[in-house]
Amino acid sequence: MAVNGDIRTSELKEPVDVAAYLFTRLKQIGIDSIHGLPGDFNLVALDYLESCGLKWVGNCNELNAGYAADGYARIKGISAVITTFGVGELSLPNAIAGSFAEFVPVVHIVGTPSTISQKNGMLLHHTLGNGNFHVFADIAAHVTVEVAKLTDPRDIAAQVDHALRECYLQSRPVYLTLPTDMVRRKVEGQRLKTKLDLSPHKNDPDKEDYVVDVVLRYLTKAKNPVILVDSCAIRHRVLEETHELIEKSGLPVFVAPMGKGAVDETLPSFGGIYAGAASNPGVQDRVESADLLLTIGSVKSDFNTAGFSYRTSQLKTIDFHSTYTRVRYSEYPNVGMKGVLRKLINRLPTLSVQPGPAVPHNAISGEANSGDTAITHQWFWPRLGHWLQEGDIVLTETGTSNYGIFDTRFPKNVTNISQILWGSIGYATGSCQGVALAARELGGNRRTILFTGDGSFQLTCQEVSTMIRHDLNPIIFIICNNGYTIERFIHGMEAGYNDIQNWKYKDLLPAFGAKEGNYKTYQVQTKSEVEALLQDENFSKAPYLQLVELYMPWDDSPTGLCVTAEASARNNAKMLETS
Amino acid sequence: MAVNGDIRTSELKEPVDVAAYLFTRLKQIGIDSIHGLPGDFNLVALDYLESCGLKWVGNCNELNAGYAADGYARIKGISAVITTFGVGELSLPNAIAGSFAEFVPVVHIVGTPSTISQKNGMLLHHTLGNGNFHVFADIAAHVTVEVAKLTDPRDIAAQVDHALRECYLQSRPVYLTLPTDMVRRKVEGQRLKTKLDLSPHKNDPDKEDYVVDVVLRYLTKAKNPVILVDSCAIRHRVLEETHELIEKSGLPVFVAPMGKGAVDETLPSFGGIYAGAASNPGVQDRVESADLLLTIGSVKSDFNTAGFSYRTSQLKTIDFHSTYTRVRYSEYPNVGMKGVLRKLINRLPTLSVQPGPAVPHNAISGEANSGDTAITHQWFWPRLGHWLQEGDIVLTETGTSNYGIFDTRFPKNVTNISQILWGSIGYATGSCQGVALAARELGGNRRTILFTGDGSFQLTCQEVSTMIRHDLNPIIFIICNNGYTIERFIHGMEAGYNDIQNWKYKDLLPAFGAKEGNYKTYQVQTKSEVEALLQDENFSKAPYLQLVELYMPWDDSPTGLCVTAEASARNNAKMLETS
Repeated sequence: MAVNGDIRTSELKEPVDVAAYLFTRLKQIGIDSIHGLPGDFNLVALDYLESCGLKWVGNCNELNAGYAADGYARIKGISAVITTFGVGELSLPNAIAGSFAEFVPVVHIVGTPSTISQKNGMLLHHTLGNGNFHVFADIAAHVTVEVAKLTDPRDIAAQVDHALRECYLQSRPVYLTLPTDMVRRKVEGQRLKTKLDLSPHKNDPDKEDYVVDVVLRYLTKAKNPVILVDSCAIRHRVLEETHELIEKSGLPVFVAPMGKGAVDETLPSFGGIYAGAASNPGVQDRVESADLLLTIGSVKSDFNTAGFSYRTSQLKTIDFHSTYTRVRYSEYPNVGMKGVLRKLINRLPTLSVQPGPAVPHNAISGEANSGDTAITHQWFWPRLGHWLQEGDIVLTETGTSNYGIFDTRFPKNVTNISQILWGSIGYATGSCQGVALAARELGGNRRTILFTGDGSFQLTCQEVSTMIRHDLNPIIFIICNNGYTIERFIHGMEAGYNDIQNWKYKDLLPAFGAKEGNYKTYQVQTKSEVEALLQDENFSKAPYLQLVELYMPWDDSPTGLCVTAEASARNNAKMLETS
Repeated sequence: MAVNGDIRTSELKEPVDVAAYLFTRLKQIGIDSIHGLPGDFNLVALDYLESCGLKWVGNCNELNAGYAADGYARIKGISAVITTFGVGELSLPNAIAGSFAEFVPVVHIVGTPSTISQKNGMLLHHTLGNGNFHVFADIAAHVTVEVAKLTDPRDIAAQVDHALRECYLQSRPVYLTLPTDMVRRKVEGQRLKTKLDLSPHKNDPDKEDYVVDVVLRYLTKAKNPVILVDSCAIRHRVLEETHELIEKSGLPVFVAPMGKGAVDETLPSFGGIYAGAASNPGVQDRVESADLLLTIGSVKSDFNTAGFSYRTSQLKTIDFHSTYTRVRYSEYPNVGMKGVLRKLINRLPTLSVQPGPAVPHNAISGEANSGDTAITHQWFWPRLGHWLQEGDIVLTETGTSNYGIFDTRFPKNVTNISQILWGSIGYATGSCQGVALAARELGGNRRTILFTGDGSFQLTCQEVSTMIRHDLNPIIFIICNNGYTIERFIHGMEAGYNDIQNWKYKDLLPAFGAKEGNYKTYQVQTKSEVEALLQDENFSKAPYLQLVELYMPWDDSPTGLCVTAEASARNNAKMLETS
């Protein structure tokens, strides 16, 4: 007999448990490991992971799990994190909001009390004590594109499929609740034989043709057009089209800070970072003097533009976005860049191209190696470029690192992960765990290299334990400079509130359970020591987890950060005069 | 000239900056230290702390800061935590929701972008990138009793006063946003000469008399009434009344788990913990056979009642709550316990009292010290009672600790802090920092003693660094038992997802910067080693921070936890039969 709205199991062609259905779908879309923490409302579901071919990560805390899931998704295309009701999930909003802001597809699954407990409004632990079982989902709705409460087996398979598709296509987090009494309910397993359709929305062909005509009209007339690639080109998966356009057009190409890594920086047409007043040398003039600027996936946020310091004109700009195209002031809604760029490439005639600025690999270094002297940002970041290898994944924490990297010229296929829009310190260390795991799953020996600050590292340090637990081998650089340097440059240069407790970072690895011979730590205080380290072959091979304490002066900062911080302080202080 | 809705500074009798006004009010209501982290939108405000007599804690991350603020408030009556917009505040909902659920008054202040930036919908860092500056406050509204956006100097002083009053009187968190451009605006400082009125709401005297009459009618007729004290007696500040009632009535008195520490356990009338099936020996029968049960601040949540295992009748119960009284099934709204208890004490006649169960100090120990053998919960927790001192503050993490403490008989004036309703693991370590600081500020050499599990400790471990930074001297016991034991007892006894990475916890202290001679660590694996430690005078004096690795078998648990976990697993699994 069917009860409580259940599908009669006998009516199902291939009955499969709800948890098995959900996890099989996750596996099908490319997820091999699940981040998260156990909690009494998700334990029974976790029993299904192994049989669905999924590995359980088991993070140290939920915020870190959320960051790690974000990093994993940036490498593998999508990820999932499982937490428990209330206490677990409410540690995550910062991570999930970051994924939302920066277009990272993360599936957040929350084990909740049974539907029966919820209907009866039972006074359970992990509730606010007021019988409201919806409040946490209501919170999640603010920072996700879909909330799916899996409460009725008749709907669950369709809900899961829909939520995963929205997650992937909108490239933003979704939130699913899985009540304890739904885990073992039966749904139609035959659906699993058909893979989820994750193909992008197609533009209306006529509209698309029209837009491409308009773009070509401006492009073919332009005398010295340039291309600017930004983060949404990465996050909305048009890098293939972007690369083809760059190659076929031959146009000078630049990246915004958030687009760093999207373009092959070894190309002669690559000009460097464009970030308004904080651009690489020669870049600002070249971009701003172009008579046509093609932007791909642009995000004009304060920290991506060095405090809104672009001096470009919309009259000379064509913007390609995921859901619309804008030519000067004409907007074409629902004409997304995926189709437009493809058609543009196909129809692109030979263009008359003027070169970008010559910014040779070394020119962005303003400072020579002066031996046994303090490591400065101006010296370090350009130097780093020579050490990086093809395929490296470089995480740069919000702070000096994600500005410093402006001055690092990447080899081919280097991925840069940072959170320039959302900017949550602590993110990069948590994310590094997910990134290193994802890189290993993809194979190919890509190195994972983290740059974080001492202050930032302290927020999420324990995720290094998870890296150790899973034998991951990232190289972790902790910039030791006595506190929150990015804040100092905004306000309170010498204020006590920007100080931190100084740690012996190296000693954390054995304390977190790293075994002798399975890790190595370093301390570098001078340029010569950096040189020696970067020339150490064993270090560069990244055979196991390595941690480097990289000492830099407390009051030193990359140029990009100085410019942006000043602009930010001005903006914060701006107020109408009081009488 | 007054602009933008400003009060003309010349019209103010004693102009004071907004930040100074807010911080002075915090100081006036008993807050001496502010928890939180710096962030670019709150830096300028932080400049005002020192001149307002406030100390800045500077936590390692925001969730920990929220937990610490909760702990501080439980000791000092109220607390404040400052974070930055978006990225800072969204790490806190778990802590704030815990304070909301458990009635702890925490003032959460968020530094936000300037009102001008918000009005212009600027694409700033720490936003979702969609121009919505309200979304984080909307999230906060779900778990706070007041959201005050300080955007107009004409309103700010009144908004601050109102929010602080609601925070204190409702004993729940409030949320204030302080935009960067409001920090230095002027408000009327003369208001500060009048202290905030934090006196509790008074009951209508006629209603109150009526209710007391009804209570007395039942009470004087009862043959063997008992009193049950629970957490809301603590959180809604009626301990003085409760103690007087206990003393004057002479009735047997019991505490629920969440009420542990509310009653002088050395009183002959104290019977122990009542938690239904998980009560101390003899207690369940005594309480459930009483012909009248007076409950003070009762919270009948699953984990406070060992899985709803009370077998008491509402027909024999009188419930005193903060905002209403209930006599059998008759409810009296807006007749709160503060006034009712006071009047009841004043009018109480001599009662014929039957004694509670004789539960001598040692009887709850079921196991003798058998020397060099593994430390079991059944042995440890009763033993602990002999070592505790008057005035100790004991934090017990959700897990084995907050069940184990059922079996510890407290000396006078011992405070127990745990989160039995909200139950967020990681809470106790963060909270410990705030508790230890609050205890020091109150003087009197009260010891702060933390019991946490290895899995729980990992979530928030870095707050030990903050304890070191401020020279706090808690005693931290980490129960090392290879993972999430509370989860094992609910589901997955040997499942890998309940395992953790084993750390060398002792080594964290020097890694976090503790200086030789300023801390001490211990490792105890047998009952004899525990005995030796507890008899070590220097250890007991708590001269500096001390950390004890306390090894217990992975599959051992206090009786209270076994009973509750079984009930929880049954409730989770409950589902209607499928066909």
